[in-house]
This record gives sequence, structure tokens and C-alpha cells, in this order.
Amino acid sequence: MGIVFSDISVSADGFATGPNQREDAPFGDIDESWLHGWMFETADENRAELDAITDAGATIMGRNMFGPVRGEWDRDWRGWWGSNPPFHNPVFVLTHHRHEPIEMEGGTTYHFVTGGIRSALEQAQDAAGNANVSIAGGARTVNQFLAAGLLDELRLHVTPCILGAGERIFDAVPPQRLKRVSVRVASLVTHMTYTAVRS
Amino acid sequence: MGIVFSDISVSADGFATGPNQREDAPFGDIDESWLHGWMFETADENRAELDAITDAGATIMGRNMFGPVRGEWDRDWRGWWGSNPPFHNPVFVLTHHRHEPIEMEGGTTYHFVTGGIRSALEQAQDAAGNANVSIAGGARTVNQFLAAGLLDELRLHVTPCILGAGERIFDAVPPQRLKRVSVRVASLVTHMTYTAVRS
Repeated sequence: MGIVFSDISVSADGFATGPNQREDAPFGDIDESWLHGWMFETADENRAELDAITDAGATIMGRNMFGPVRGEWDRDWRGWWGSNPPFHNPVFVLTHHRHEPIEMEGGTTYHFVTGGIRSALEQAQDAAGNANVSIAGGARTVNQFLAAGLLDELRLHVTPCILGAGERIFDAVPPQRLKRVSVRVASLVTHMTYTAVRS
Repeated sequence: MGIVFSDISVSADGFATGPNQREDAPFGDIDESWLHGWMFETADENRAELDAITDAGATIMGRNMFGPVRGEWDRDWRGWWGSNPPFHNPVFVLTHHRHEPIEMEGGTTYHFVTGGIRSALEQAQDAAGNANVSIAGGARTVNQFLAAGLLDELRLHVTPCILGAGERIFDAVPPQRLKRVSVRVASLVTHMTYTAVRS
């Protein structure tokens, strides 16, 4: 079986989004290049980290990462990523509201899971087979997996900025030691990989 | 003139103390070795960073770092560090309550500043001459200097743990880009130095 990992770009103060996330500003009121510029402006330099992000057989994400619809599914929404999303594998969206699967181009199918993170993980691992499972975000979803001890590898991509508000990594995760697996310094980002320490 | 710098050990989630700071637990309810073990258990490996911490001609600290006394100075308190404190230079303690200077052994004299951070900085720079000024902490004091744009170099010593509560670096500091000056990876800590980006 593969590992369960999460990649998340954060500011120096740990925010993965700015304040006021909404449909026309999925990352809130920030200059998104502060957090994600490294992925685009310096893609070659960060090829290994970018390849690792997509090295998964299934993906899990929170509903707010999937889209801006809240409550009942009262409109047709197919994710932020267009007709051929970058996942190319089954994506399990955490929600409290049932929804039929949505099949996209390129191998991505959105499944909607109402049974919580353990149920989503079980379904994702079944779908992934021997491949890894990616917890794609947002921060709140990653924190749920961290708090439950279900994440094998957290890959923080720390960018040199202060955001001051938004969704923060590690919020409501119980105090614990971590193991720092690796650090790699690139021009626009510091890649820091952590695992939990089982005591 | 030297630079104004601050060294502060923080958890992966940015806390420089745990919750419930008090006289018999200056760092609150945490295992302090999580934050500061690198300074003691691996001092040789981190000699350059440790030497840089003490490379100052004057020091500024918040009153809560100086001691547990709150409100009026209603008891004799001479810092946490014994009769020969590790500063060996004039230490300017931020407080709202006047107090005569306290001269200790080894070159440390505690001065009490009631005029705020700019007044403290002016006095510290006068005392330091061409040497650096150290903003010793705690996090709230460092954040005040950061927010006012008065810090030349912030040296975060990031340790692999989650604390979940306490005093956090960057709290209430306005959103801004930073410049990451250097990163050095040691066995128990990642040293990350930032400066402000003036726009």
C-alpha cells in the first residue's frame, strides 16, 4: 500500500489561504503568487516536488477546496479546474450532502463522501491500490487527517510572506513531536517534510 | 551602527511558548526541550547560531520575559537568569511601571523603559554604539518590533513539534512579503533567517 501524503503551500505564519475565500477569490484576499508562485515561476527548479504532488492513485479534498457551494448542492458545480482537472484519478470530496459522482475528462471522477474522513480514506485507498493517496486540502481537511493520525507525510512548502489571517495549517491538531524528514531550499520556497512520531 | 535582530525558537506551528506561562513554568505547560533542546543537546553543531544570539551590545525584552511580576513592582525580582545573566550588556525591559536600574554581575544592567518600543530602541542603540541590538523576546515583543518595521533580521529556529497554543510569532503583524536570507538545517532545528522587504 502507498502512503497518505499532503502537500500544502503556506506562509511563514502558516496560512494556506488568506481571509475571505469566495468564488472569485478561491484563496481569499491575497496575492496568490505569494503562496504558489514557486509552482509556476520556478517549476523547473521544483520538478521533484511538483512530480511528488501528482504521484497518487486517488485524491481526497474538503468541500471548500472543491468549490464555493455551501449547504445543499443547489447548482451545477464541477470543481475549479475545468473539464480536464489535474488529478487524473478518483477524487473523494468530503461533504455532508449526497451527490452523484461526476466524471470528468482525463481520468478524474469526483465522488462525494458523506461518511467522514475515515470513510473517504478507505474508499480512496481501495481506489488507489498500491499507489499513494493525496490529501489535497484545504488546510482544515489536512488538519483533520493530522489530528486523527492518518497522515504519513506532510509536505509544507513554506513561502516567505506573512498573511495574518485565513486557514492555518496545524490548527486544532493536538500537541506532539514531529519528525522532520527532509528540508530542501529553493529560490522561492523552503520544502519541509514532516511525519508524525508514534510514541 | 549594528543591526537590530531577534532570535526566537518556535514550533512548526509558530509558538514560542506553550499555554499557561507562570513563575514555575516560564515557557508554560510544555516540555521545554522541544523548543530549546537544540541549544543544549547539540550546542557544538549550532555554535554559529548560538554565537550570533549573543553578538549584541544591548538587549531589549518584554516584561513577561523578564519575569512573572505583573502590574506594580510589588516584589524584588531580578530576572530568571541568576546573579550573572547571559546578556553581559545593558538590557532594556519594556514596562508600564517605573523601576530603578538593577546592576547585576558580568556586565548586565536591567533598565526599565516606560516609553514604548521606539524609546527602548533609541536607548539600546545609544548603549550599543556600533554593535547590534538584540530583541530577546518574548514573541509579543518581537511582533511589536516586526509590526513597526524596526527589525532588520528575524532568526527563526524552527523545531519539529506542534504546540497548539501559547504566544505565536507573527501574530498581529501586517501582511507582507519577507526576504528569506538563509536556511540552515541542523539535526534538531531548522534555522531560517528573514528580513522585511521594503516596498
